Amino acid sequence: MMYETLLVEQQDCALLVQLNRPQARNAMSLAMVNELNHVFDRATNDPSIRALVLRGVDGHFCSGGDIKDMAGARAQAQAQTQAAQHGSDTEDAFYTLNRAFGRMITRADNVPCVLITVLEGAVLGGGFGLACVSDVAIAAHSAQFGLPETGLGVVPAQIAPFVVTRVGLTQARRLALLGERFDGEEAVRLGIAHYLCDSKQAIDDTLENVLTKVRRAAPHANRVTKQLLHQVGSMEMDSLLDGAAREFATAVKSDEGAEGTLAFVEKRLPNWAQ
Amino acid sequence: MMYETLLVEQQDCALLVQLNRPQARNAMSLAMVNELNHVFDRATNDPSIRALVLRGVDGHFCSGGDIKDMAGARAQAQAQTQAAQHGSDTEDAFYTLNRAFGRMITRADNVPCVLITVLEGAVLGGGFGLACVSDVAIAAHSAQFGLPETGLGVVPAQIAPFVVTRVGLTQARRLALLGERFDGEEAVRLGIAHYLCDSKQAIDDTLENVLTKVRRAAPHANRVTKQLLHQVGSMEMDSLLDGAAREFATAVKSDEGAEGTLAFVEKRLPNWAQ
Amino acid sequence: MMYETLLVEQQDCALLVQLNRPQARNAMSLAMVNELNHVFDRATNDPSIRALVLRGVDGHFCSGGDIKDMAGARAQAQAQTQAAQHGSDTEDAFYTLNRAFGRMITRADNVPCVLITVLEGAVLGGGFGLACVSDVAIAAHSAQFGLPETGLGVVPAQIAPFVVTRVGLTQARRLALLGERFDGEEAVRLGIAHYLCDSKQAIDDTLENVLTKVRRAAPHANRVTKQLLHQVGSMEMDSLLDGAAREFATAVKSDEGAEGTLAFVEKRLPNWAQ
Repeated sequence: MMYETLLVEQQDCALLVQLNRPQARNAMSLAMVNELNHVFDRATNDPSIRALVLRGVDGHFCSGGDIKDMAGARAQAQAQTQAAQHGSDTEDAFYTLNRAFGRMITRADNVPCVLITVLEGAVLGGGFGLACVSDVAIAAHSAQFGLPETGLGVVPAQIAPFVVTRVGLTQARRLALLGERFDGEEAVRLGIAHYLCDSKQAIDDTLENVLTKVRRAAPHANRVTKQLLHQVGSMEMDSLLDGAAREFATAVKSDEGAEGTLAFVEKRLPNWAQ
Repeated sequence: MMYETLLVEQQDCALLVQLNRPQARNAMSLAMVNELNHVFDRATNDPSIRALVLRGVDGHFCSGGDIKDMAGARAQAQAQTQAAQHGSDTEDAFYTLNRAFGRMITRADNVPCVLITVLEGAVLGGGFGLACVSDVAIAAHSAQFGLPETGLGVVPAQIAPFVVTRVGLTQARRLALLGERFDGEEAVRLGIAHYLCDSKQAIDDTLENVLTKVRRAAPHANRVTKQLLHQVGSMEMDSLLDGAAREFATAVKSDEGAEGTLAFVEKRLPNWAQ
Repeated sequence: MMYETLLVEQQDCALLVQLNRPQARNAMSLAMVNELNHVFDRATNDPSIRALVLRGVDGHFCSGGDIKDMAGARAQAQAQTQAAQHGSDTEDAFYTLNRAFGRMITRADNVPCVLITVLEGAVLGGGFGLACVSDVAIAAHSAQFGLPETGLGVVPAQIAPFVVTRVGLTQARRLALLGERFDGEEAVRLGIAHYLCDSKQAIDDTLENVLTKVRRAAPHANRVTKQLLHQVGSMEMDSLLDGAAREFATAVKSDEGAEGTLAFVEKRLPNWAQ
């Protein structure tokens, strides 16, 4: 598969994915949304991919939705309005466009491997939303986070709910209703990002350090664990723990479980960590 | 409408509401609960009100429930007990009083404009509960927060649940079960308040800064956004995002959406921000 | 009752419980799980117990599940596999063992008195899980927290869900998927623990300070409050507040409520605090 809006490269157990529309500070076009979905499919179906690193080229993560797609939707919506006057009925073009973003973010949230975001420069709108579903977020001190939507007369519809899930209602209501802009340090303080870096070198070192930890975790056990974490809050706790204990029993009797125990006894790294 | 326990003044797009019972450190009487409900109605029905600022006169936010109302309820409860011995059945006076507080806090939580609290001096009991539902909370360093109820043999019944929603179970259980007292700095650290101020001047500057940001946000888009934020957790995420995308489509095609886009292209402030 | 794996001592209104398997850094054996359940029963049924302090002997809180029990379960599972080949059907031994841990943690979460943990040395696996359900957690700076499970090829099945409840999904996904190790300072920063201590003396002082606050809280009111806090999120908010107002009315009319009000008026400590 050739990507038009992404640079994709597999490095050992990690898939490095770079948003690649530098002319638009990596604004998210519909083409990019589709290609990201393709990447998430690939990561879901290939158990050898244990981490997916999302980053932007040229010093920006992602500046939000692409205005050309918005213009396209506007033209389409006008055509729809005219068609509707002649009795034809189609789904609203703005609804379709907006919902496509949210579906992609939901998929990112549920990709079974460890999702790592590297947050530099613009982390706005949809870019902010994507950051909010990563398992590990590495932020440059100078990154600029924000929800500019209400300042433009629109609603951060597919983003604000992920901000609430990320940092709770208390901070999300302030960030969204004031259209706050803030840097990487504040993002770490709020719990949006996990690691704060002051230089490109610090980012690279932190990323390498995180990938080393991912390599130490048993691949299948980590996928099961991620799924389990996502169940909290949407399932009754006792049933959740029942299912989890069954997953534990399966894991401990699997090849991974046997190798992990043996490696521990033999004081060596397990085979998946080598 | 003349208020007995409040000072109310509209300043541009903000309604400034001051709790005004200085003789009781702005303790919340039933009359005040009713007048606050009236204010929330007004803010709900008047779209020109884009922010509601809640503050206390004389250096205190609110010292909790008024003891005179408690004494009144006690007398009423005794009368009820005697009446019940004669077969008459009425709703418990303490239940009614307590529940009225909680209903008012729920209304404050759902007021559609941006709710800003200025937290100085005593922020106790019901005052603490009210702080916990504000979109933006500005705290004086010297403010005193706390849940004194269990020290008095009673239960922070209409407050503790809002503290859990505000800062999570982990901190709420400590604060409530130990009856902790703490200042503005700790309130910001715990995420109860957003901004920490060391002087009256700093409070005024912060408030002005917050109101400037509110003015930049499109009035209707902000109301829709606040409603959306409140849905997270009580609705299934995919349905929530479906509805949100519909709100997005409506907003983008509205006058606000058109003006926001045009202002952006013309590099000027939108008309609602002028 | 004689305990084999615990040291248990009642001191005034507090039950001091020390995990006592120093040879295994207080690893949690099934025997310990059963004895802890017994202790939780005792605290539930005896209203004179207002706090339960959980601590480990010899400078460690708890290093996780005991490997001997795992070996026992492995032997039992192999026997089960053979029995199943002959048509016999029993519950999986690993499931049973794992679930027993989770049930104990759930009981700890719901013990009606104030649960205080003192977190020193190893706070790993099940020990970490137990820390996550305490009302008040006091951490030594030098304590070592972590979820080592996926590094061993297994799943933190009965622990990770309690970590999500404790600090939210955002931090829990990083901690669990990277198998992070961190100290007491980070534990306080993340909100896993509440107080940070640099010495044994500081721990003892903090614990005494916390117990003094527990003594100030009315025993029954505190139990009702704890139950109320646990309902948030699993019950619709309005019904929860209705029930809470009824508990308020009951409390205010009880002996505790009368004594609390009288003590307040007479400017003296209530009888439960003496």
